[in-house]
Amino acid sequence: MPISRFYKLYFSPNRKYVKVLKNLLGFVPGNLSLYRLAFRHKSVAQNIRKGVKNSNERLEFLGDAVLGSVVAEVLFKLYPYEDEGFLTELRSKIVSRNNLNALGKKLGFDKLIEFDTKILNGGRQGSLLGDAFEALIGAVYLDKGYDFTRNFLVNHIIKSHIDIHKLEQTETNFKSKLIEWCQRHGKDISFDVITNLDGESAKLFTVQAVVDGEVMGSGKEFSKKNAEKLAAEKACAALGI
Amino acid sequence: MPISRFYKLYFSPNRKYVKVLKNLLGFVPGNLSLYRLAFRHKSVAQNIRKGVKNSNERLEFLGDAVLGSVVAEVLFKLYPYEDEGFLTELRSKIVSRNNLNALGKKLGFDKLIEFDTKILNGGRQGSLLGDAFEALIGAVYLDKGYDFTRNFLVNHIIKSHIDIHKLEQTETNFKSKLIEWCQRHGKDISFDVITNLDGESAKLFTVQAVVDGEVMGSGKEFSKKNAEKLAAEKACAALGI
Repeated sequence: MPISRFYKLYFSPNRKYVKVLKNLLGFVPGNLSLYRLAFRHKSVAQNIRKGVKNSNERLEFLGDAVLGSVVAEVLFKLYPYEDEGFLTELRSKIVSRNNLNALGKKLGFDKLIEFDTKILNGGRQGSLLGDAFEALIGAVYLDKGYDFTRNFLVNHIIKSHIDIHKLEQTETNFKSKLIEWCQRHGKDISFDVITNLDGESAKLFTVQAVVDGEVMGSGKEFSKKNAEKLAAEKACAALGI
Repeated sequence: MPISRFYKLYFSPNRKYVKVLKNLLGFVPGNLSLYRLAFRHKSVAQNIRKGVKNSNERLEFLGDAVLGSVVAEVLFKLYPYEDEGFLTELRSKIVSRNNLNALGKKLGFDKLIEFDTKILNGGRQGSLLGDAFEALIGAVYLDKGYDFTRNFLVNHIIKSHIDIHKLEQTETNFKSKLIEWCQRHGKDISFDVITNLDGESAKLFTVQAVVDGEVMGSGKEFSKKNAEKLAAEKACAALGI
């Protein structure tokens, strides 16, 4: 272990914080102030210049982008025979606020984030964790560079905490839900592709989910599959499934 | 120059294509098939497996993410005192289809892209160039890694071809355009923040651009500034400004 990391872990005045971060991240952080910033919600941020606060929001912007890029590469390589629509959708599930909030909770971020409990009520604390997760990725990126961040995300986060194949499975839920429901209730179900209106991009697909001859939902997307899914989702909502 | 690059440039059967790419990119590409793929529009792609075509769309997905990450870092460092809303907006201008299409044209992509002229009419060729630009970034990333791609983008593309400060200036255009027009025509103009409907996120702002008492445009965004801008843009469209 290089001397600087050894010092940080055992002798520096910040050694307690360094240990917490090391346990969380699996590596000894370099620039501590970046990590402190990543865990500072705007509700406790101070003005550092007119109109500028030292909150984690700028790091969140950066981390969101780096995370998007790493996840894009992971999926690109994991699914060599899937098209960009599939990849885009699966990525958006992985980086969804829901998923990142759950991840932040699992990683124990609630004990690390500084925020004003008076300002934030229960309902709005939700996105704190996901936002901080993205900000942390921004901090790791600035501290250690892209390749390190990618390896950290892949080996320490994605492999251990994200079940990509399970997320993939959730994708067809609405369509299969609708089909199952129709089978159980003895109803006809079809997904009809509607010809685009004049002036609409030929890339757009409009699909109607038709149950017993009645249009129950319709979706317009850049792939037929996604349009079907959207139509199914709307039909499920309309039928109360 | 390493011998492999020397061979590629002067002796390989692909040397003509390598030279074209070197002139375009400023470096000798490694895996040529990636670059060929980046310039292959789906209209000329072949099925390589059931439902999978060898078009540039998957590379575009990857390149879009890498580009977003690089531009995020550039802006993060270039504007240390601007908030994430500013950074997000400026990035979206830089990576807009309009801007990337113009970039692709400037770089001469129209001579490199393979596409079926019979299928694509004039109007739809537009996004070919921007899509191929993103796919190219995906190819460079897979071929050379993140740091190389970042340096290529920063030194070869952004510094030479993208006027970030000019794009920054365009940001208030619609609002000031609208205000100027109203002043010139002796009309009242106000931007009114509308109380959110029940069930809408408290983070959302709805702003109406009101000209002489009449709502001419309205915008809903996560910042008041952006909502104003959207409302102004719509009002400009409605008034034909």
